[in-house]
Amino acid sequence: MPLYRVTLAYDGTDFEGFQAQAGARRARTVQAEVETALARLASGARVRVAGAGRTDAGVHALGQVVSFELPRALDPAALTRALNGLLPVDVRVLAAATAAPGFHARRSALSKLYRYELDCGPVQLPTRRRQVAHVAGALDAQALAAAAALFLGRHDFASLASSGSDVATTLRTLTRSEARLENDTLVYEVEGDGFLRKMVRSLVGGLLAAGRHQRSVDELARALAARDRRAWPAPAPACGLTLVRVDYPAGAVLA
Amino acid sequence: MPLYRVTLAYDGTDFEGFQAQAGARRARTVQAEVETALARLASGARVRVAGAGRTDAGVHALGQVVSFELPRALDPAALTRALNGLLPVDVRVLAAATAAPGFHARRSALSKLYRYELDCGPVQLPTRRRQVAHVAGALDAQALAAAAALFLGRHDFASLASSGSDVATTLRTLTRSEARLENDTLVYEVEGDGFLRKMVRSLVGGLLAAGRHQRSVDELARALAARDRRAWPAPAPACGLTLVRVDYPAGAVLA
Repeated sequence: MPLYRVTLAYDGTDFEGFQAQAGARRARTVQAEVETALARLASGARVRVAGAGRTDAGVHALGQVVSFELPRALDPAALTRALNGLLPVDVRVLAAATAAPGFHARRSALSKLYRYELDCGPVQLPTRRRQVAHVAGALDAQALAAAAALFLGRHDFASLASSGSDVATTLRTLTRSEARLENDTLVYEVEGDGFLRKMVRSLVGGLLAAGRHQRSVDELARALAARDRRAWPAPAPACGLTLVRVDYPAGAVLA
Repeated sequence: MPLYRVTLAYDGTDFEGFQAQAGARRARTVQAEVETALARLASGARVRVAGAGRTDAGVHALGQVVSFELPRALDPAALTRALNGLLPVDVRVLAAATAAPGFHARRSALSKLYRYELDCGPVQLPTRRRQVAHVAGALDAQALAAAAALFLGRHDFASLASSGSDVATTLRTLTRSEARLENDTLVYEVEGDGFLRKMVRSLVGGLLAAGRHQRSVDELARALAARDRRAWPAPAPACGLTLVRVDYPAGAVLA
Protein backbone atom coordinates (compact mmCIF):
# COMPACT_ATOMS: atom_id res chain seq x y z
CA MET A 1 0.00 0.00 0.00
CA PRO A 2 1.30 3.50 -0.78
CA LEU A 3 2.99 5.16 2.19
CA TYR A 4 2.66 8.89 2.93
CA ARG A 5 4.40 11.49 5.03
CA VAL A 6 2.33 14.51 5.99
CA THR A 7 3.42 17.67 7.83
CA LEU A 8 0.84 19.10 10.24
CA ALA A 9 0.40 22.35 12.14
CA TYR A 10 -2.05 22.60 14.99
CA ASP A 11 -3.21 24.80 17.81
CA GLY A 12 -3.03 22.36 20.72
CA THR A 13 -5.20 24.44 23.05
CA ASP A 14 -8.40 22.51 22.44
CA PHE A 15 -6.82 19.05 22.09
CA GLU A 16 -6.05 16.46 24.75
CA GLY A 17 -2.72 15.91 23.07
CA PHE A 18 -1.63 14.26 19.84
CA GLN A 19 -2.05 10.60 20.64
CA ALA A 20 -5.40 8.84 20.44
CA GLN A 21 -6.29 7.37 23.81
CA ALA A 22 -7.63 3.91 24.39
CA GLY A 23 -10.66 3.52 26.66
CA ALA A 24 -14.28 4.48 26.81
CA ARG A 25 -13.85 8.26 27.14
CA ARG A 26 -13.75 10.03 23.80
CA ALA A 27 -10.82 12.42 24.06
CA ARG A 28 -10.31 14.98 21.31
CA THR A 29 -6.85 14.22 19.91
CA VAL A 30 -4.99 15.28 16.79
CA GLN A 31 -4.38 11.66 15.82
CA ALA A 32 -8.08 10.80 16.06
CA GLU A 33 -9.03 13.83 13.93
CA VAL A 34 -6.50 12.88 11.24
CA GLU A 35 -7.52 9.21 11.31
CA THR A 36 -11.20 10.15 11.01
CA ALA A 37 -10.44 12.34 7.98
CA LEU A 38 -8.28 9.62 6.39
CA ALA A 39 -10.98 7.00 6.91
CA ARG A 40 -13.28 9.13 4.77
CA LEU A 41 -10.64 9.24 2.02
CA ALA A 42 -10.18 5.47 2.36
CA SER A 43 -13.89 4.67 1.92
CA GLY A 44 -14.29 3.96 5.61
CA ALA A 45 -11.23 1.73 6.05
CA ARG A 46 -9.34 2.23 9.29
CA VAL A 47 -6.07 4.12 8.68
CA ARG A 48 -3.49 4.10 11.49
CA VAL A 49 -1.34 7.18 11.78
CA ALA A 50 2.10 7.34 13.45
CA GLY A 51 3.22 10.74 14.75
CA ALA A 52 6.83 11.91 15.14
CA GLY A 53 6.17 13.54 18.51
CA ARG A 54 3.48 12.62 21.04
CA THR A 55 2.72 16.21 22.01
CA ASP A 56 0.80 16.64 25.27
CA ALA A 57 -2.51 18.43 25.81
CA GLY A 58 -2.07 22.13 25.06
CA VAL A 59 1.17 21.69 23.10
CA HIS A 60 1.21 23.15 19.58
CA ALA A 61 2.87 22.14 16.33
CA LEU A 62 4.19 24.05 13.36
CA GLY A 63 5.82 20.97 11.84
CA GLN A 64 4.55 17.70 13.32
CA VAL A 65 5.04 14.80 10.92
CA VAL A 66 2.78 11.77 10.56
CA SER A 67 3.09 8.68 8.40
CA PHE A 68 0.38 6.28 7.22
CA GLU A 69 -0.55 3.88 4.47
CA LEU A 70 -3.57 4.35 2.24
CA PRO A 71 -5.36 1.55 0.39
CA ARG A 72 -5.07 3.52 -2.88
CA ALA A 73 -2.51 5.96 -4.27
CA LEU A 74 -3.38 9.65 -4.06
CA ASP A 75 -1.51 12.61 -5.53
CA PRO A 76 0.15 14.41 -2.55
CA ALA A 77 -1.28 17.83 -3.52
CA ALA A 78 -4.77 16.32 -3.80
CA LEU A 79 -4.26 14.58 -0.44
CA THR A 80 -3.35 17.95 1.17
CA ARG A 81 -6.44 19.65 -0.24
CA ALA A 82 -8.74 16.76 0.65
CA LEU A 83 -7.49 16.52 4.25
CA ASN A 84 -7.75 20.28 4.78
CA GLY A 85 -11.32 20.08 3.55
CA LEU A 86 -12.12 17.40 6.15
CA LEU A 87 -10.04 18.47 9.17
CA PRO A 88 -11.19 20.98 11.81
CA VAL A 89 -9.70 24.49 11.57
CA ASP A 90 -7.25 23.93 14.40
CA VAL A 91 -5.35 21.25 12.44
CA ARG A 92 -3.94 21.93 8.98
CA VAL A 93 -1.91 19.88 6.55
CA LEU A 94 1.04 21.99 5.39
CA ALA A 95 2.59 19.43 3.04
CA ALA A 96 2.23 15.83 1.89
CA ALA A 97 4.65 13.53 0.11
CA THR A 98 5.03 9.91 -0.87
CA ALA A 99 7.40 8.28 1.62
CA ALA A 100 10.17 5.78 0.91
CA PRO A 101 9.37 2.15 1.87
CA GLY A 102 9.83 1.57 5.59
CA PHE A 103 9.45 5.25 6.51
CA HIS A 104 7.98 5.79 9.98
CA ALA A 105 7.33 9.31 11.31
CA ARG A 106 8.78 8.56 14.77
CA ARG A 107 11.30 5.78 14.20
CA SER A 108 12.83 7.38 11.10
CA ALA A 109 13.27 10.81 12.73
CA LEU A 110 16.84 12.04 13.17
CA SER A 111 16.00 15.03 15.35
CA LYS A 112 13.21 17.29 16.55
CA LEU A 113 13.22 21.00 17.24
CA TYR A 114 10.95 22.41 19.95
CA ARG A 115 10.42 26.04 20.93
CA TYR A 116 9.11 27.17 24.29
CA GLU A 117 7.91 30.72 24.97
CA LEU A 118 7.10 32.17 28.37
CA ASP A 119 6.11 35.76 29.08
CA CYS A 120 7.50 36.89 32.43
CA GLY A 121 6.13 40.45 32.26
CA PRO A 122 3.57 41.75 34.75
CA VAL A 123 0.58 41.37 32.39
CA GLN A 124 0.30 39.12 29.35
CA LEU A 125 -1.35 40.27 26.12
CA PRO A 126 -4.56 38.19 25.79
CA THR A 127 -3.84 37.60 22.10
CA ARG A 128 -0.74 35.59 23.09
CA ARG A 129 -2.29 33.54 25.87
CA ARG A 130 -2.95 30.37 23.88
CA GLN A 131 0.62 30.04 22.55
CA VAL A 132 2.81 31.69 25.19
CA ALA A 133 2.93 30.67 28.85
CA HIS A 134 2.81 33.43 31.46
CA VAL A 135 4.48 33.48 34.84
CA ALA A 136 5.16 37.01 36.09
CA GLY A 137 8.57 37.74 37.60
CA ALA A 138 11.90 38.89 36.20
CA LEU A 139 14.35 36.30 34.83
CA ASP A 140 18.13 36.61 34.71
CA ALA A 141 19.17 36.25 31.07
CA GLN A 142 22.72 35.13 31.91
CA ALA A 143 21.52 32.43 34.29
CA LEU A 144 19.02 31.24 31.65
CA ALA A 145 21.74 30.97 29.01
CA ALA A 146 24.14 29.18 31.35
CA ALA A 147 21.48 26.66 32.44
CA ALA A 148 20.47 26.04 28.81
CA ALA A 149 24.11 25.27 27.89
CA LEU A 150 24.21 22.68 30.69
CA PHE A 151 21.75 20.48 28.78
CA LEU A 152 23.81 20.33 25.58
CA GLY A 153 25.32 17.00 24.59
CA ARG A 154 24.55 13.44 25.68
CA HIS A 155 23.00 13.03 29.13
CA ASP A 156 20.87 10.61 31.06
CA PHE A 157 17.72 12.71 31.48
CA ALA A 158 16.03 10.34 33.97
CA SER A 159 15.55 13.29 36.36
CA LEU A 160 13.35 14.94 33.73
CA ALA A 161 11.32 11.89 32.70
CA SER A 162 7.64 11.91 33.53
CA SER A 163 6.54 9.02 35.76
CA GLY A 164 4.39 7.57 32.98
CA SER A 165 7.38 6.95 30.70
CA ASP A 166 8.22 3.39 29.72
CA VAL A 167 11.26 3.83 27.55
CA ALA A 168 14.28 1.56 27.06
CA THR A 169 16.76 4.30 27.86
CA THR A 170 16.64 7.82 29.24
CA LEU A 171 19.83 8.80 27.42
CA ARG A 172 19.27 11.60 24.91
CA THR A 173 21.56 13.91 22.94
CA LEU A 174 20.74 17.59 22.60
CA THR A 175 22.46 19.39 19.74
CA ARG A 176 20.93 22.77 20.44
CA SER A 177 19.76 24.33 23.71
CA GLU A 178 19.50 28.11 23.59
CA ALA A 179 17.58 30.41 25.92
CA ARG A 180 17.23 34.16 25.42
CA LEU A 181 14.98 36.96 26.58
CA GLU A 182 13.11 38.93 23.89
CA ASN A 183 11.68 41.86 25.80
CA ASP A 184 9.81 40.12 28.62
CA THR A 185 9.57 36.77 26.86
CA LEU A 186 11.82 33.77 27.43
CA VAL A 187 12.39 31.99 24.13
CA TYR A 188 13.98 28.55 24.46
CA GLU A 189 14.89 26.44 21.44
CA VAL A 190 15.98 22.87 21.92
CA GLU A 191 16.87 20.27 19.32
CA GLY A 192 17.79 16.67 19.96
CA ASP A 193 17.61 13.08 18.79
CA GLY A 194 14.63 12.43 21.03
CA PHE A 195 12.75 13.68 24.05
CA LEU A 196 11.24 11.90 27.02
CA ARG A 197 7.67 12.60 28.03
CA LYS A 198 7.38 16.21 29.38
CA MET A 199 11.15 16.54 28.98
CA VAL A 200 11.08 19.93 27.22
CA ARG A 201 8.72 21.37 29.83
CA SER A 202 11.01 19.97 32.53
CA LEU A 203 14.04 21.54 30.86
CA VAL A 204 12.17 24.86 30.95
CA GLY A 205 11.28 24.22 34.61
CA GLY A 206 15.02 23.99 35.26
CA LEU A 207 15.68 27.16 33.26
CA LEU A 208 13.06 29.06 35.27
CA ALA A 209 14.60 27.90 38.56
CA ALA A 210 17.97 29.19 37.35
CA GLY A 211 16.54 32.41 35.89
CA ARG A 212 14.88 33.22 39.23
CA HIS A 213 18.05 32.33 41.17
CA GLN A 214 16.22 29.54 42.98
CA ARG A 215 18.82 27.04 41.75
CA SER A 216 22.38 27.67 40.66
CA VAL A 217 23.67 26.06 37.49
CA ASP A 218 25.80 23.77 39.69
CA GLU A 219 22.73 22.70 41.62
CA LEU A 220 20.92 21.95 38.37
CA ALA A 221 23.90 19.91 37.18
CA ARG A 222 23.73 17.83 40.37
CA ALA A 223 19.96 17.40 40.03
CA LEU A 224 20.45 16.20 36.46
CA ALA A 225 23.18 13.76 37.52
CA ALA A 226 20.96 12.43 40.34
CA ARG A 227 18.72 10.66 37.77
CA ASP A 228 15.84 11.16 40.19
CA ARG A 229 12.87 13.17 39.07
CA ARG A 230 12.17 14.35 42.63
CA ALA A 231 15.45 16.29 42.39
CA TRP A 232 14.27 18.36 39.41
CA PRO A 233 12.04 21.48 39.39
CA ALA A 234 8.43 21.15 38.25
CA PRO A 235 7.71 21.26 34.50
CA ALA A 236 6.62 24.55 32.90
CA PRO A 237 3.02 24.92 31.60
CA ALA A 238 2.15 23.08 28.37
CA CYS A 239 0.75 26.02 26.41
CA GLY A 240 4.17 27.64 25.77
CA LEU A 241 5.50 24.62 23.88
CA THR A 242 5.55 24.13 20.10
CA LEU A 243 6.98 21.27 18.04
CA VAL A 244 8.64 23.30 15.29
CA ARG A 245 10.32 20.78 13.01
CA VAL A 246 11.24 17.11 12.60
CA ASP A 247 14.24 16.15 10.48
CA TYR A 248 14.72 12.91 8.54
CA PRO A 249 17.53 11.40 6.51
CA ALA A 250 17.76 12.49 2.89
CA GLY A 251 15.83 10.01 0.78
CA ALA A 252 13.01 9.47 3.27
CA VAL A 253 10.67 11.17 0.83
CA LEU A 254 10.14 9.97 -2.72
CA ALA A 255 8.07 12.81 -4.17
CA MET B 1 -15.36 61.95 41.47
CA PRO B 2 -11.86 60.82 40.46
CA LEU B 3 -11.50 60.17 36.73
CA TYR B 4 -9.37 57.33 35.32
CA ARG B 5 -7.86 56.37 32.01
CA VAL B 6 -7.15 52.67 31.52
CA THR B 7 -5.39 50.95 28.63
CA LEU B 8 -6.82 47.53 27.68
CA ALA B 9 -5.70 44.63 25.54
CA TYR B 10 -8.14 41.95 24.49
CA ASP B 11 -8.60 38.96 22.25
CA GLY B 12 -11.84 39.90 20.48
CA THR B 13 -12.57 36.39 19.21
CA ASP B 14 -15.04 35.49 21.93
CA PHE B 15 -16.64 38.95 22.30
CA GLU B 16 -19.57 40.45 20.47
CA GLY B 17 -17.60 43.66 20.18
CA PHE B 18 -16.54 46.36 22.61
CA GLN B 19 -19.78 48.19 23.19
CA ALA B 20 -22.42 46.97 25.63
CA GLN B 21 -25.68 46.38 23.79
CA ALA B 22 -29.09 47.48 24.97
CA GLY B 23 -31.90 44.96 24.88
CA ALA B 24 -32.92 41.69 26.41
CA ARG B 25 -30.20 39.49 24.92
CA ARG B 26 -27.07 39.30 27.07
CA ALA B 27 -24.22 39.84 24.66
CA ARG B 28 -20.68 39.26 25.90
CA THR B 29 -18.93 42.60 25.36
CA VAL B 30 -15.66 44.09 26.59
CA GLN B 31 -17.46 47.12 28.00
CA ALA B 32 -19.85 44.95 30.02
CA GLU B 33 -16.95 42.88 31.43
CA VAL B 34 -15.07 46.01 32.48
CA GLU B 35 -18.19 47.63 33.96
CA THR B 36 -18.99 44.46 35.91
CA ALA B 37 -15.45 44.38 37.35
CA LEU B 38 -15.59 48.11 38.20
CA ALA B 39 -18.95 47.72 39.93
CA ARG B 40 -17.29 45.25 42.30
CA LEU B 41 -14.57 47.81 43.06
CA ALA B 42 -17.25 50.47 43.56
CA SER B 43 -19.23 48.44 46.11
CA GLY B 44 -21.90 47.62 43.57
CA ALA B 45 -22.38 51.15 42.19
CA ARG B 46 -22.91 51.33 38.43
CA VAL B 47 -19.76 52.63 36.66
CA ARG B 48 -20.14 53.76 33.04
CA VAL B 49 -17.14 53.24 30.82
CA ALA B 50 -16.38 55.17 27.61
CA GLY B 51 -14.16 53.45 25.05
CA ALA B 52 -11.93 55.17 22.49
CA GLY B 53 -12.87 52.76 19.69
CA ARG B 54 -16.07 50.75 19.36
CA THR B 55 -14.39 47.65 18.02
CA ASP B 56 -16.69 45.13 16.33
CA ALA B 57 -17.15 41.46 17.18
CA GLY B 58 -13.91 39.58 16.57
CA VAL B 59 -11.73 42.72 16.50
CA HIS B 60 -8.77 42.73 18.92
CA ALA B 61 -7.01 45.44 20.90
CA LEU B 62 -3.45 45.92 22.06
CA GLY B 63 -4.11 49.48 23.24
CA GLN B 64 -7.81 50.27 23.61
CA VAL B 65 -8.38 53.14 26.05
CA VAL B 66 -11.36 53.56 28.37
CA SER B 67 -12.28 56.35 30.76
CA PHE B 68 -14.56 56.26 33.80
CA GLU B 69 -15.22 57.85 37.16
CA LEU B 70 -15.02 55.96 40.43
CA PRO B 71 -16.82 56.96 43.62
CA ARG B 72 -13.54 56.75 45.55
CA ALA B 73 -9.92 57.41 44.65
CA LEU B 74 -7.76 54.35 43.93
CA ASP B 75 -4.04 54.18 43.32
CA PRO B 76 -3.62 53.42 39.56
CA ALA B 77 -1.28 50.47 40.19
CA ALA B 78 -3.75 49.01 42.69
CA LEU B 79 -6.58 49.60 40.18
CA THR B 80 -4.63 47.67 37.52
CA ARG B 81 -4.03 44.71 39.83
CA ALA B 82 -7.60 44.69 41.13
CA LEU B 83 -9.15 44.80 37.64
CA ASN B 84 -6.86 42.05 36.33
CA GLY B 85 -7.94 39.93 39.29
CA LEU B 86 -11.60 40.40 38.35
CA LEU B 87 -11.52 40.43 34.53
CA PRO B 88 -11.66 37.28 32.35
CA VAL B 89 -8.35 36.16 30.81
CA ASP B 90 -9.18 37.53 27.36
CA VAL B 91 -9.21 41.14 28.65
CA ARG B 92 -6.22 42.61 30.48
CA VAL B 93 -5.48 46.04 31.91
CA LEU B 94 -2.04 47.10 30.69
CA ALA B 95 -1.92 50.48 32.44
CA ALA B 96 -4.04 52.83 34.51
CA ALA B 97 -3.64 56.53 35.26
CA THR B 98 -5.55 59.39 36.83
CA ALA B 99 -6.98 61.49 34.00
CA ALA B 100 -7.15 65.26 33.74
CA PRO B 101 -10.63 66.77 34.39
CA GLY B 102 -12.86 66.49 31.31
CA PHE B 103 -10.88 63.62 29.79
CA HIS B 104 -13.01 61.30 27.64
CA ALA B 105 -11.50 58.22 26.00
CA ARG B 106 -13.26 58.82 22.66
CA ARG B 107 -13.80 62.58 22.48
CA SER B 108 -10.29 63.48 23.73
CA ALA B 109 -8.54 61.13 21.28
CA LEU B 110 -6.32 62.79 18.67
CA SER B 111 -5.71 59.69 16.58
CA LYS B 112 -5.99 55.92 16.49
CA LEU B 113 -3.70 53.35 14.94
CA TYR B 114 -5.14 50.10 13.59
CA ARG B 115 -3.32 47.12 12.13
CA TYR B 116 -4.89 44.56 9.83
CA GLU B 117 -3.25 41.23 8.97
CA LEU B 118 -4.39 38.82 6.30
CA ASP B 119 -2.65 35.59 5.31
CA CYS B 120 -3.02 34.96 1.57
CA GLY B 121 -0.97 31.75 1.50
CA PRO B 122 -2.51 28.40 0.54
CA VAL B 123 -2.84 27.13 4.14
CA GLN B 124 -2.95 29.20 7.31
CA LEU B 125 -1.13 28.13 10.47
CA PRO B 126 -3.86 27.25 13.02
CA THR B 127 -1.99 29.15 15.75
CA ARG B 128 -2.60 32.40 13.82
CA ARG B 129 -6.25 31.86 12.96
CA ARG B 130 -7.76 33.97 15.76
CA GLN B 131 -5.70 37.09 15.00
CA VAL B 132 -4.95 36.89 11.29
CA ALA B 133 -7.58 36.67 8.56
CA HIS B 134 -7.06 34.12 5.80
CA VAL B 135 -8.10 34.37 2.18
CA ALA B 136 -5.92 32.25 -0.12
CA GLY B 137 -4.69 33.79 -3.35
CA ALA B 138 -1.64 35.84 -4.33
CA LEU B 139 -1.68 39.63 -3.85
CA ASP B 140 0.29 42.19 -5.88
CA ALA B 141 2.46 44.13 -3.41
CA GLN B 142 2.78 47.17 -5.68
CA ALA B 143 -0.95 47.43 -6.23
CA LEU B 144 -1.52 47.10 -2.46
CA ALA B 145 0.93 49.92 -1.73
CA ALA B 146 -0.55 52.18 -4.41
CA ALA B 147 -4.11 51.62 -3.20
CA ALA B 148 -3.07 52.25 0.42
CA ALA B 149 -1.51 55.59 -0.57
CA LEU B 150 -4.82 56.61 -2.18
CA PHE B 151 -6.47 56.75 1.26
CA LEU B 152 -3.93 59.18 2.75
CA GLY B 153 -5.11 62.67 3.65
CA ARG B 154 -8.58 64.12 4.12
CA HIS B 155 -11.43 62.35 2.31
CA ASP B 156 -15.15 61.87 2.54
CA PHE B 157 -15.26 58.15 3.34
CA ALA B 158 -19.05 57.79 2.88
CA SER B 159 -18.45 54.93 0.42
CA LEU B 160 -16.83 52.98 3.28
CA ALA B 161 -19.36 53.76 6.01
CA SER B 162 -21.44 50.88 7.31
CA SER B 163 -25.18 51.35 6.90
CA GLY B 164 -25.70 51.49 10.68
CA SER B 165 -23.57 54.63 11.06
CA ASP B 166 -25.20 57.78 12.37
CA VAL B 167 -22.38 60.29 12.35
CA ALA B 168 -22.41 64.04 11.72
CA THR B 169 -19.77 63.83 9.03
CA THR B 170 -18.06 61.13 7.02
CA LEU B 171 -14.94 63.27 6.51
CA ARG B 172 -11.85 61.72 8.07
CA THR B 173 -8.12 62.40 7.82
CA LEU B 174 -5.67 59.51 7.52
CA THR B 175 -2.08 60.36 8.41
CA ARG B 176 -0.71 56.88 7.75
CA SER B 177 -1.87 54.19 5.35
CA GLU B 178 0.78 51.60 4.57
CA ALA B 179 0.32 48.12 3.13
CA ARG B 180 3.10 45.59 2.71
CA LEU B 181 3.50 41.86 2.24
CA GLU B 182 5.51 39.98 4.87
CA ASN B 183 5.96 36.53 3.33
CA ASP B 184 2.38 35.57 2.53
CA THR B 185 0.81 38.03 4.96
CA LEU B 186 -0.65 41.42 4.10
CA VAL B 187 0.10 43.85 6.91
CA TYR B 188 -1.83 47.11 6.73
CA GLU B 189 -1.30 49.93 9.21
CA VAL B 190 -3.63 52.89 9.20
CA GLU B 191 -3.70 55.89 11.51
CA GLY B 192 -6.22 58.70 11.48
CA ASP B 193 -8.24 61.19 13.48
CA GLY B 194 -11.23 58.86 13.46
CA PHE B 195 -12.79 55.92 11.71
CA LEU B 196 -16.34 55.20 10.60
CA ARG B 197 -17.98 51.92 11.52
CA LYS B 198 -16.25 49.03 9.62
CA MET B 199 -14.12 51.62 7.83
CA VAL B 200 -10.78 49.85 8.35
CA ARG B 201 -12.21 46.55 7.16
CA SER B 202 -13.63 48.37 4.13
CA LEU B 203 -10.26 49.98 3.42
CA VAL B 204 -8.76 46.47 3.48
CA GLY B 205 -11.58 45.28 1.20
CA GLY B 206 -10.42 47.94 -1.28
CA LEU B 207 -6.79 46.89 -0.87
CA LEU B 208 -7.67 43.26 -1.59
CA ALA B 209 -9.59 44.24 -4.74
CA ALA B 210 -6.50 46.15 -5.93
CA GLY B 211 -4.06 43.43 -4.84
CA ARG B 212 -6.01 40.83 -6.84
CA HIS B 213 -6.29 43.17 -9.87
CA GLN B 214 -10.06 43.17 -9.58
CA ARG B 215 -10.02 46.97 -9.32
CA SER B 216 -7.40 49.42 -10.53
CA VAL B 217 -6.28 52.21 -8.24
CA ASP B 218 -8.15 54.66 -10.54
CA GLU B 219 -11.33 52.62 -10.16
CA LEU B 220 -10.93 52.65 -6.38
CA ALA B 221 -10.40 56.44 -6.49
CA ARG B 222 -13.70 56.82 -8.38
CA ALA B 223 -15.50 54.46 -5.98
CA LEU B 224 -14.22 56.54 -3.05
CA ALA B 225 -15.33 59.80 -4.73
CA ALA B 226 -18.79 58.32 -5.42
CA ARG B 227 -19.68 58.53 -1.70
CA ASP B 228 -21.90 55.49 -2.23
CA ARG B 229 -21.18 52.35 -0.28
CA ARG B 230 -22.56 50.15 -3.08
CA ALA B 231 -19.59 51.32 -5.16
CA TRP B 232 -17.03 49.93 -2.70
CA PRO B 233 -15.77 46.33 -2.33
CA ALA B 234 -17.01 44.25 0.62
CA PRO B 235 -15.24 44.66 3.98
CA ALA B 236 -12.52 42.19 4.96
CA PRO B 237 -13.14 39.71 7.84
CA ALA B 238 -13.12 41.13 11.39
CA CYS B 239 -10.58 38.75 12.91
CA GLY B 240 -7.57 40.33 11.16
CA LEU B 241 -8.12 43.74 12.78
CA THR B 242 -6.40 45.07 15.92
CA LEU B 243 -6.71 48.50 17.57
CA VAL B 244 -3.04 49.09 18.34
CA ARG B 245 -2.88 52.52 19.96
CA VAL B 246 -4.87 55.66 20.76
CA ASP B 247 -3.07 58.99 21.11
CA TYR B 248 -4.14 61.92 23.29
CA PRO B 249 -2.87 65.46 23.81
CA ALA B 250 -0.03 65.86 26.29
CA GLY B 251 -1.53 66.62 29.68
CA ALA B 252 -4.51 64.28 29.35
CA VAL B 253 -3.02 62.15 32.09
CA LEU B 254 -2.20 63.47 35.55
CA ALA B 255 -0.31 60.54 37.06
